[in-house]
Amino acid sequence: MTGPFPRIGIFSKPTGEGITESLLQICDFLEKRGHKVILDQISAARILNTKLESATYDEIGMQCDLVIVIGGDGSLLKAARAIVDAKIPILGINRGNLGFLADVTAHNLETTLEEILSGHYIEEQRTMLNATVIQNNKSTPGHLALNDIVLHHGELARLIDFQIFIDDQFVVDQRADGVITATPTGSTAYSLSGGGPIVYPTLDVITLLPMFPHSLNTRPIVIDKSSKIRLVLNASNRIVAQFSADGQSHMTLSAGDEIRIETNKNNLRLLHPLSYNYFAVLREKLGWNLKLNK
Amino acid sequence: MTGPFPRIGIFSKPTGEGITESLLQICDFLEKRGHKVILDQISAARILNTKLESATYDEIGMQCDLVIVIGGDGSLLKAARAIVDAKIPILGINRGNLGFLADVTAHNLETTLEEILSGHYIEEQRTMLNATVIQNNKSTPGHLALNDIVLHHGELARLIDFQIFIDDQFVVDQRADGVITATPTGSTAYSLSGGGPIVYPTLDVITLLPMFPHSLNTRPIVIDKSSKIRLVLNASNRIVAQFSADGQSHMTLSAGDEIRIETNKNNLRLLHPLSYNYFAVLREKLGWNLKLNK
Amino acid sequence: MTGPFPRIGIFSKPTGEGITESLLQICDFLEKRGHKVILDQISAARILNTKLESATYDEIGMQCDLVIVIGGDGSLLKAARAIVDAKIPILGINRGNLGFLADVTAHNLETTLEEILSGHYIEEQRTMLNATVIQNNKSTPGHLALNDIVLHHGELARLIDFQIFIDDQFVVDQRADGVITATPTGSTAYSLSGGGPIVYPTLDVITLLPMFPHSLNTRPIVIDKSSKIRLVLNASNRIVAQFSADGQSHMTLSAGDEIRIETNKNNLRLLHPLSYNYFAVLREKLGWNLKLNK
Amino acid sequence: MTGPFPRIGIFSKPTGEGITESLLQICDFLEKRGHKVILDQISAARILNTKLESATYDEIGMQCDLVIVIGGDGSLLKAARAIVDAKIPILGINRGNLGFLADVTAHNLETTLEEILSGHYIEEQRTMLNATVIQNNKSTPGHLALNDIVLHHGELARLIDFQIFIDDQFVVDQRADGVITATPTGSTAYSLSGGGPIVYPTLDVITLLPMFPHSLNTRPIVIDKSSKIRLVLNASNRIVAQFSADGQSHMTLSAGDEIRIETNKNNLRLLHPLSYNYFAVLREKLGWNLKLNK
Repeated sequence: MTGPFPRIGIFSKPTGEGITESLLQICDFLEKRGHKVILDQISAARILNTKLESATYDEIGMQCDLVIVIGGDGSLLKAARAIVDAKIPILGINRGNLGFLADVTAHNLETTLEEILSGHYIEEQRTMLNATVIQNNKSTPGHLALNDIVLHHGELARLIDFQIFIDDQFVVDQRADGVITATPTGSTAYSLSGGGPIVYPTLDVITLLPMFPHSLNTRPIVIDKSSKIRLVLNASNRIVAQFSADGQSHMTLSAGDEIRIETNKNNLRLLHPLSYNYFAVLREKLGWNLKLNK
Repeated sequence: MTGPFPRIGIFSKPTGEGITESLLQICDFLEKRGHKVILDQISAARILNTKLESATYDEIGMQCDLVIVIGGDGSLLKAARAIVDAKIPILGINRGNLGFLADVTAHNLETTLEEILSGHYIEEQRTMLNATVIQNNKSTPGHLALNDIVLHHGELARLIDFQIFIDDQFVVDQRADGVITATPTGSTAYSLSGGGPIVYPTLDVITLLPMFPHSLNTRPIVIDKSSKIRLVLNASNRIVAQFSADGQSHMTLSAGDEIRIETNKNNLRLLHPLSYNYFAVLREKLGWNLKLNK
Repeated sequence: MTGPFPRIGIFSKPTGEGITESLLQICDFLEKRGHKVILDQISAARILNTKLESATYDEIGMQCDLVIVIGGDGSLLKAARAIVDAKIPILGINRGNLGFLADVTAHNLETTLEEILSGHYIEEQRTMLNATVIQNNKSTPGHLALNDIVLHHGELARLIDFQIFIDDQFVVDQRADGVITATPTGSTAYSLSGGGPIVYPTLDVITLLPMFPHSLNTRPIVIDKSSKIRLVLNASNRIVAQFSADGQSHMTLSAGDEIRIETNKNNLRLLHPLSYNYFAVLREKLGWNLKLNK
Repeated sequence: MTGPFPRIGIFSKPTGEGITESLLQICDFLEKRGHKVILDQISAARILNTKLESATYDEIGMQCDLVIVIGGDGSLLKAARAIVDAKIPILGINRGNLGFLADVTAHNLETTLEEILSGHYIEEQRTMLNATVIQNNKSTPGHLALNDIVLHHGELARLIDFQIFIDDQFVVDQRADGVITATPTGSTAYSLSGGGPIVYPTLDVITLLPMFPHSLNTRPIVIDKSSKIRLVLNASNRIVAQFSADGQSHMTLSAGDEIRIETNKNNLRLLHPLSYNYFAVLREKLGWNLKLNK
């Protein structure tokens, strides 16, 4: 009766209007359907006198069959990093506009949930990145990203010098503001603002996009997802640089430091309603339906 | 003694300096190694009193184990279209500068040939496109391309209106000068001039690049090589459009006509010397080694 | 009583819905205001039993104080070329959506006309280009453009080789699909699709934009409007090229031919209502008001 | 005998090889020619037992007829900010490669200096920007830039929301990494890396270039140099932003802060040898002379 997902974890966005209402509605719906519901800490804090269990992300990952995220694409990015290695699927409920990732909207919420929980859905395998930062022979592994890993100059200067290696082959010596390493999912996020291509989300590729490159003959490069990428800050850099993963996990780097990027051993299992159509999302989100008069 | 390629077809560039000298040198070298050598018509016309056999492209495809092309990337594109469905490998000898495709140069020619003919080489599978043009319910199939299929406005006007479908899903209604459908091999050719990404040559993807799009929110899209692409000229077009495959096979299209593009059932088998390194070729060809002073 | 423009020429778009209605309305309005109205041949053909005079563009240029164009931006481009050297101002009435040039719309038509005809308007000086084509020592002068002069490859091939000179100084040897020479007015037309900058319409500059350049380090260049530009097709071109001015005046060029471009000795005098605001037009036409959800 | 520049100030780059040698050579040359030479503090520190006077930038500005900068483009940028309002001309001696600004090289140094000091030179008027930062009703004026004023997100986040006004007209509500306001001189510096156009250096225009804009329909805009630009950080920004002028004068901004940018009341008077040719510099610096083999 509860279908393929008897135990469901609920993640919520910490801020924003209407989240608590959606949370209550969804919990109520799930309990009536007979699911065991476990809340993350943020959701638990939103419903004060609830009898529902709450747990850490790790516990939810171990104990649940599905995670539902109530929020927008940003909330789903965060949940993806928390849950990907538990290998359970994730579903995003978008309070506001249609998201690239969270594509169940308030409109027809219960009908869509019923359909998905009964086992009628589309499951996509989304590549995630896993970065290790190496500083002074010390390695900080496990920076996960569903969108992108960004190496960028720090606060006080404009250009950093770094070398890109792919599978230990030297690619290029770059002077630039930084470089974005993007998954197909991330191709419609930050990378797109910098002129990167739109990449169909389930392709087995990674895009490297130099940011404000000093040389004019630089272009985005699309490589295989099995590639091992190394970004090495040249010893000549007198300035600090920044590392971030999905706009989080900030670290400050300096000359000689290195970022190693691979695809994560597990893909994110992202669920969509049967009506999901990537090109329709693109048209909606990028304004392709609008007729301009240029 | 003749190794994996006892019978070798030779294709030559019709014009250009030094081609005949290379042709004579290579034929002599192959005969001494004991290979059966078959010339294409162009090569045969270059060596007047030769005892070597000559044959059509089809015959060479059926009778040989390898085709060697003497010329540049343009000659290799043409040979690729002629030979891909015979499933035999191809090797390019570049008279002038290093090519993206023809990467055996005059320097150390015999040493490199000896190495490859002894079985020490890199074989790459390169995706090719196969386009069918549909006009007035009449279908013209079999336009092959190793680089790209281009739909472009004709001589008298600037913008054409067309729809793009992928796997029969509507993608976008486009007003533009045209659209380039490029293989990874073609990503460093015409597509690159229009802002397309560099795509590692053995990836299983295709790039769609609108040319001078009327709407400003258009971007290149990278899709799976299994995708079936349809480009449909809207009925509203009052002007003619042009179709070409690798800059060849020109056809004139009009309102309502359609181009269907799939990847060809066979990949091109492209041989390289063991020293081949794609990123080194990129650096050389795109000038990444040059230190500009901007 | 008729204000600064006692005699008014009327130009109409040859095709399109509602043009005749607007034409009748405007003629009626002008006659009631006491203006002498002269129709171009197209307008005359639209109103069969009219008592209004009709005349050629040249006659209208000599006899009128203002030209009103009923149509869209395309009609205004054509009228601009016909009327610029008569030094009389031009006003565009847009039947459909707001245009970049024709910015009086059907909404409040008579109120706006009354305001303008009473002398309350904004007059802009818009730079126009004047190109001369030189073939076999024969010179074809007088190709006018309000938007752009385009040199582009012909039907059968992709790349042309040409040299750009500015004030007889050599600038660059270019291999490309072509080059757009755009006025500020043309900066939001074809040039924009190719990545050219938006240029405020009354600036004294010209933009040169290479189209699909073979070299990756090419960028648009903005130069002074007093510059004398020469585009010389290299002798090495084996293919033909095309010349056009505002998408009209097509000519076929070949190796050694030359295009000389200067700004026209007279600017176009373009009238706008007092409510005219260029940035508001940009926002409307380029979709800057739309909130995308990327 | 000392020509138009009897009193010459000397500015030097603080670090870098060979600067002291050039400095000694030039001082010696100028003294022999009878000029009064005044050193800046950096130059004075480089020549320990000199009898030459040293002075502050302001004193040099008041007492000299010319400033010679020994260094590269970076040193000249700094000198320009120090000297522009003293209205005396500036000449750059480049120790290393040809610069965009410092275009007298070690090669033929004395011959070139003799020519210029005898009054045979090209003087260009280069537009500079003058920015005022307004925070909490407190105004910090006088940030000068020969290249560009940059508004950019701070260390911890990616996107800032700001409004652009030109001459108090609202232009656009932008969500982006930042925006570059560049002079024509700056068009070949940072702006070029972000896709901005090359602008002939003496044109009376300014370029506004959004950096990594969230909306895809954003383009660089070229406006008149008399424009008064206001960049207003929306109240919604929860993050800090950074301001810089020529990569210097860093300030940290927050929600509601405002940057006002005008052209400086004085142009920089930049001297060049008679052999100066801007397009030749472009070709050299941007690699247009290189024949790539793409």
